[in-house]
Amino acid sequence: MSSVLKLGELSVSVFGESHGGGIGCVIDGLPSGVTLDTDAILSFMARRAPKKDGMSTARSEADTPEILSGFFNGKTTGTPLTAVIRNTDTRSQDYSNISAAARPGHADYTGFVRYEGANDPRGGGHFSGRLTAPLVFAGAVCGQILSKRGIESCAHILAIDGVYDDSFDTLSISSELMNSVKTQEMPVINESVAGKMRERVKLAASELDSVGGIVECAVTGLPAGIGSPMFDGLENRISQAVFGIPAVKAVAFGKGFGFAEMRGSEANDEMYVENGTVKTRTNNNGGIYGGISGGMPILFTAAIRPTPSIAKPQNTVDFIKNENTGLVIKGRHDACIVPRAVPVVEAAANIAILSFLL
Amino acid sequence: MSSVLKLGELSVSVFGESHGGGIGCVIDGLPSGVTLDTDAILSFMARRAPKKDGMSTARSEADTPEILSGFFNGKTTGTPLTAVIRNTDTRSQDYSNISAAARPGHADYTGFVRYEGANDPRGGGHFSGRLTAPLVFAGAVCGQILSKRGIESCAHILAIDGVYDDSFDTLSISSELMNSVKTQEMPVINESVAGKMRERVKLAASELDSVGGIVECAVTGLPAGIGSPMFDGLENRISQAVFGIPAVKAVAFGKGFGFAEMRGSEANDEMYVENGTVKTRTNNNGGIYGGISGGMPILFTAAIRPTPSIAKPQNTVDFIKNENTGLVIKGRHDACIVPRAVPVVEAAANIAILSFLL
Amino acid sequence: MSSVLKLGELSVSVFGESHGGGIGCVIDGLPSGVTLDTDAILSFMARRAPKKDGMSTARSEADTPEILSGFFNGKTTGTPLTAVIRNTDTRSQDYSNISAAARPGHADYTGFVRYEGANDPRGGGHFSGRLTAPLVFAGAVCGQILSKRGIESCAHILAIDGVYDDSFDTLSISSELMNSVKTQEMPVINESVAGKMRERVKLAASELDSVGGIVECAVTGLPAGIGSPMFDGLENRISQAVFGIPAVKAVAFGKGFGFAEMRGSEANDEMYVENGTVKTRTNNNGGIYGGISGGMPILFTAAIRPTPSIAKPQNTVDFIKNENTGLVIKGRHDACIVPRAVPVVEAAANIAILSFLL
Amino acid sequence: MSSVLKLGELSVSVFGESHGGGIGCVIDGLPSGVTLDTDAILSFMARRAPKKDGMSTARSEADTPEILSGFFNGKTTGTPLTAVIRNTDTRSQDYSNISAAARPGHADYTGFVRYEGANDPRGGGHFSGRLTAPLVFAGAVCGQILSKRGIESCAHILAIDGVYDDSFDTLSISSELMNSVKTQEMPVINESVAGKMRERVKLAASELDSVGGIVECAVTGLPAGIGSPMFDGLENRISQAVFGIPAVKAVAFGKGFGFAEMRGSEANDEMYVENGTVKTRTNNNGGIYGGISGGMPILFTAAIRPTPSIAKPQNTVDFIKNENTGLVIKGRHDACIVPRAVPVVEAAANIAILSFLL
Repeated sequence: MSSVLKLGELSVSVFGESHGGGIGCVIDGLPSGVTLDTDAILSFMARRAPKKDGMSTARSEADTPEILSGFFNGKTTGTPLTAVIRNTDTRSQDYSNISAAARPGHADYTGFVRYEGANDPRGGGHFSGRLTAPLVFAGAVCGQILSKRGIESCAHILAIDGVYDDSFDTLSISSELMNSVKTQEMPVINESVAGKMRERVKLAASELDSVGGIVECAVTGLPAGIGSPMFDGLENRISQAVFGIPAVKAVAFGKGFGFAEMRGSEANDEMYVENGTVKTRTNNNGGIYGGISGGMPILFTAAIRPTPSIAKPQNTVDFIKNENTGLVIKGRHDACIVPRAVPVVEAAANIAILSFLL
Repeated sequence: MSSVLKLGELSVSVFGESHGGGIGCVIDGLPSGVTLDTDAILSFMARRAPKKDGMSTARSEADTPEILSGFFNGKTTGTPLTAVIRNTDTRSQDYSNISAAARPGHADYTGFVRYEGANDPRGGGHFSGRLTAPLVFAGAVCGQILSKRGIESCAHILAIDGVYDDSFDTLSISSELMNSVKTQEMPVINESVAGKMRERVKLAASELDSVGGIVECAVTGLPAGIGSPMFDGLENRISQAVFGIPAVKAVAFGKGFGFAEMRGSEANDEMYVENGTVKTRTNNNGGIYGGISGGMPILFTAAIRPTPSIAKPQNTVDFIKNENTGLVIKGRHDACIVPRAVPVVEAAANIAILSFLL
Repeated sequence: MSSVLKLGELSVSVFGESHGGGIGCVIDGLPSGVTLDTDAILSFMARRAPKKDGMSTARSEADTPEILSGFFNGKTTGTPLTAVIRNTDTRSQDYSNISAAARPGHADYTGFVRYEGANDPRGGGHFSGRLTAPLVFAGAVCGQILSKRGIESCAHILAIDGVYDDSFDTLSISSELMNSVKTQEMPVINESVAGKMRERVKLAASELDSVGGIVECAVTGLPAGIGSPMFDGLENRISQAVFGIPAVKAVAFGKGFGFAEMRGSEANDEMYVENGTVKTRTNNNGGIYGGISGGMPILFTAAIRPTPSIAKPQNTVDFIKNENTGLVIKGRHDACIVPRAVPVVEAAANIAILSFLL
Repeated sequence: MSSVLKLGELSVSVFGESHGGGIGCVIDGLPSGVTLDTDAILSFMARRAPKKDGMSTARSEADTPEILSGFFNGKTTGTPLTAVIRNTDTRSQDYSNISAAARPGHADYTGFVRYEGANDPRGGGHFSGRLTAPLVFAGAVCGQILSKRGIESCAHILAIDGVYDDSFDTLSISSELMNSVKTQEMPVINESVAGKMRERVKLAASELDSVGGIVECAVTGLPAGIGSPMFDGLENRISQAVFGIPAVKAVAFGKGFGFAEMRGSEANDEMYVENGTVKTRTNNNGGIYGGISGGMPILFTAAIRPTPSIAKPQNTVDFIKNENTGLVIKGRHDACIVPRAVPVVEAAANIAILSFLL
């Protein structure tokens, strides 16, 4: 059971291959009677769409989900909500030369071994980044439900190729900031870094290469006491969901690896009461203690590896002949998927957070 | 269901509180007929024991597990394997003054809210680091089963308070190195850093403070093709298990956040065939592509936050009176838990890896 | 998570409403590389189609599943296999008069309470027997995989309205018999009872009423040693799947309730060795001991309640006005769904059995 | 994962072997802060104890559970609640002669194959009916929590060897009746049948044989709207739990197999409103429609097969030599376990019902 994100009583079963008939998801366990704004779902999904200005692949997918079930009279029914996205612009000939030459960094070889050669290899098949579209759909739905409960989430580009945006200051984060970030083509807090990031991406592209980065995500409005110790807490569920995004290679809460250079007196978030509410003067722990929310915003980061598909010639193996070979990847590929990963990380967070509130 | 680590068909149900009757675990789903070396289990667990030389708490727990079920004639039966560790040295008076004054960085407040005041607060109760003992037991059992299949794991201290050990070179890692690391009081690869790490810990302790660090773990011998895409792959299961360790705040595979400053041409692990086996010339992805093993060793790191319990006076809240208060934590506390976290991370990895092989 | 049949590592997520856009399922966890005969899938599904000769509803659904994912070059890919069946012939006006008048025996009222009035009530919505079509699809797929491993299943009508067919004699059951039963419009072993059953159904229909019955299912070829004790054995998984069929109200293995009038000396299946294989001289326990197969065929029965939708006037409640009312159900309804339930029970068994062999 | 009863967010992990160190369970997912009456737990467990008057085995187990965790200051903590019951009276020599001669009707052979000979065979090991003691413990705990929410359950002997008790009349069932039934050594509604049942058991025992029966269980106070359609409804969860009891071979809701001889007009439970509450004039469906409660009591039955251990000489196989052999079972065995199964069925129901209310 690889592609079902089962978190408590919420289940998101994602299906499809990049160049098959379609992709989609079944969301089981949603509350009933919640009005969904389908335009807002499309807007959320549009944030994942290929970027203009030469930064993304030229593939233009309408990627409009058809809701097949679980939605009636504008509201969730509480029974499984299903969305299907047809694959339309599938120029599979672009991929015809890479059949058995494993693209390094991709799952071509591991998928071949795992599925004994039977998986659909076209465009990465089920391993394709395209499978994040239904994940974003599910996250958009969950986000709307969270929003009605006063919980908001927002992700942004924390870094691309060594160019860093500011971090969210979760002591003062506002809805205005979050909404503003979401509208940007390059979603950052400090807009002055967007240009530098673009330059890094274009430079890499011009050198037939790609770059990686970091996405940071904040969740506000989650009350204290949500989560559980040990294996089913906020960190476990968020990381299980976020590691479901193909390019993610690390997940960190609060200061994350920065704790390795901190003292306890600094890392401990000093607590105080203000207007009857317990708060902390810092939020180094990303709002989570013992797997449970403390009432401050949740903050985490996810490392996004550079796009494996690069135009540079690469050495690799032919996994059928089991011999060395060379490879030049053709076709359409983003030199940096970090901007498009932003709503995906946010979507994964939405699913994980909602799973605790059902 | 907070304290059941359910990974595929393997389930580890951990129970207990720091100062209750006992702690332990039930492991369901183990293969039958595997000979277990109970002395080796105790040796593994001893690696988690408090460290000598003033680095750890003075609490001396025998921590000898009693195997209650699932073990017959020296072998696993295949039915649930249960171990109970009695709590014996529980000086609960040491904790008597901290009842409602939340220890910053701990789960005192979040646990109070989550369980509406009913959880056992003594020594952190179910949130205590002591609960990692049964996790280590389970990991020791799983490790022996993996070992019979040619799979070995080893964790070490990658960093303490800014002092860094070498990383595992997974292109050349040997059993000898792994076995050697495991025997050390301060498990490091470059033994010359151990002294500096100790100094940092002692300095922090002398200043009534604590320090954090990083644990790195390698797993060798895992064949290619193990794992799954999306939500139930190697990264998902390993992170779900490792985030079950109370102090862990980040989990990274391969270069992790380092990918944010890498190019694709660098990050992609060049593949080649040697003696009929597919290998890679680098292992930046920690041996995992699309959630599935590629045949090279698995490599990941976990950030360990500084021990929240410090002797320095701290400002905090009384969560019953809901007012500000001061706190001086007494009792026995490690100024650095990173050395003791090393076998715990390794144990969590063992459980996660074995779950794929059943 | 109501509509995901999760059995071990196999997951079947069923979705849809009777009169919505479509219904279908996502099957996650199938083995890769298994050739599927899509015509045979359609044939299996056709066994569930409405019966001729006035016994079934006039609704004619093509019910042709579109396979959207997980199937490539005629084989399973090992990644999620998805089928969608469009709803085409949905005369929702037929149902217009039953909005808030609960149909007795149906889930109209319980669904209304459960989903706080937000579920799609048209034609029973997600509670409709139509949702068994994707279940049959999944069971047909699983059945083909089982068949390649020498495992065959067959269900038949054991009883309709007090007219009983013979039971399978699992000591001598043959593929020929099973294949023959599957081809019949009224699938029975003793064909002489089919006519009597038809008469009972027609009589009930003529009296604006309906009748119930029993489906019996045998599974041959399952080797000894499959299953587990306690909560995840053959009986647990089969019953969890079979109770997923809306009309099923009881599941019994072997002699089932007949054990209440048996002696142990009679109920115990005497064991013997024949040609090196352990067999039993009777199969009262339906081939299962301690949740585990013993090598003899599996045998179980499922009680099918009479169709709740009858044309007779009924007293009931208006669950919105919360007052008594009368009801005459119009529209198309089977006076007996037992014949159509036969392949559904077989399908559920196939899924449950396959889940143990992955 | 065979011995974890995972129902929604509630998990009961049962462990132990009949003649090992001990048996017990870990209950994860309980609400916090619920006062538990430990004497009442012991009383509930005592209902499962061997019966006086020669009807049960002479084995006298104190069977007193030690609560190791999850219970503090008389209340549930919300963290895992663990109970251990030591095995004390284990005369394993009684079983010495049955090592490889499979006891017909038992799991000796299937367990041997399943676990490749490594399972603990003494007294049935993990397959022993003794494992129902921790299940009863868990059910007693869950029952107390249900009781505080106005939900009561009660099981009784519906039949032993063809002698039938009255069924619960769920239209008029009272707490007084339920409490009265629970106090009886032979828990029946119509006390006049108890004597006849005893006679049947004694007769069978005198003939070195055993008898089976039926347990019926009612649950009152469950409001309408609890449960879910398809695979995770009341019937699915109750049956999954109840089939976890070794001797259970069938589970039926309401009229169960009786539906096979009913008309829809009769089977449909006519609905009406009384004092603003929806009720039904009959309860043929056992209070469940579409997997969801309708507000009337839940009613189900479970078939209990005759004790496989009989003193009569039996033909069987030696599963190590793989040859025919004879067997005379010595030791202590109930000629009828139905009376002792009564609280076990009730316990399983309690766990299943509570799982929906967390």
